[in-house]
Amino acid sequence: MEVESLVLNHIALVVEDLREALAFWGEKVGLPVAGAAETIADEGVDIAFLQLGDARLELIQPRDQASGVARYLAKRGAGLHHLCLEVPSLDAKLGELAAQGIELINEAPRERDGRRYAFVHPASTGGVLLELYERR
Amino acid sequence: MEVESLVLNHIALVVEDLREALAFWGEKVGLPVAGAAETIADEGVDIAFLQLGDARLELIQPRDQASGVARYLAKRGAGLHHLCLEVPSLDAKLGELAAQGIELINEAPRERDGRRYAFVHPASTGGVLLELYERR
Repeated sequence: MEVESLVLNHIALVVEDLREALAFWGEKVGLPVAGAAETIADEGVDIAFLQLGDARLELIQPRDQASGVARYLAKRGAGLHHLCLEVPSLDAKLGELAAQGIELINEAPRERDGRRYAFVHPASTGGVLLELYERR
Repeated sequence: MEVESLVLNHIALVVEDLREALAFWGEKVGLPVAGAAETIADEGVDIAFLQLGDARLELIQPRDQASGVARYLAKRGAGLHHLCLEVPSLDAKLGELAAQGIELINEAPRERDGRRYAFVHPASTGGVLLELYERR
């Protein structure tokens, strides 16, 4: 394995109600809100971030009942959803993981707003949906 | 709400097999192992930590089938289990949360190895088991 430093980018929660969740984690727990809430139309979700040291807490509310997140919420309930780590080279890391038999949801990186990312399947991680970001 | 800086101390996973989980998150993903695995006899678990930037990833394997973590594993399966944030004053934060109607699992701080901690009930957090550490 190459020597590299992996960094936590965010921890994501699925929530029933984004406004209530922002009030809880922001006002009651005390995490600073990081930017405005936004809609990711093609994934059928609304999201918002709070700052958590150098990392962030992502809140995800499904808007579309056909979305993967809506199905997750219906099946598992609200709560912890995924972890996102930053890696120096996403192609290298996905290649390494695939060569070790790790099941990838995205075998090739996807891209949104200039950010390259891919998901690793929970079947290969001990039940954790794992997102990888390429460091920018 | 007082102005304070909240820091992520760790993210905890429940695992079926601590050795396999250490091999996955350590060797395959590439997180540095942080100290030796240890047994917390009174909680019926074995735990180990990996470094994750300034925070840590905690791996928890139940040893005792009567433990809370064993029941969680049987009911929910392996995966994300809880988040732990550090607060400057645990008494102050627990008082603030209780005054806002947040349900606490530990109304008074507990202590282990000189570390003061308490858990907040997932019923009040949108399904997230939340641990609070007092900063040392």
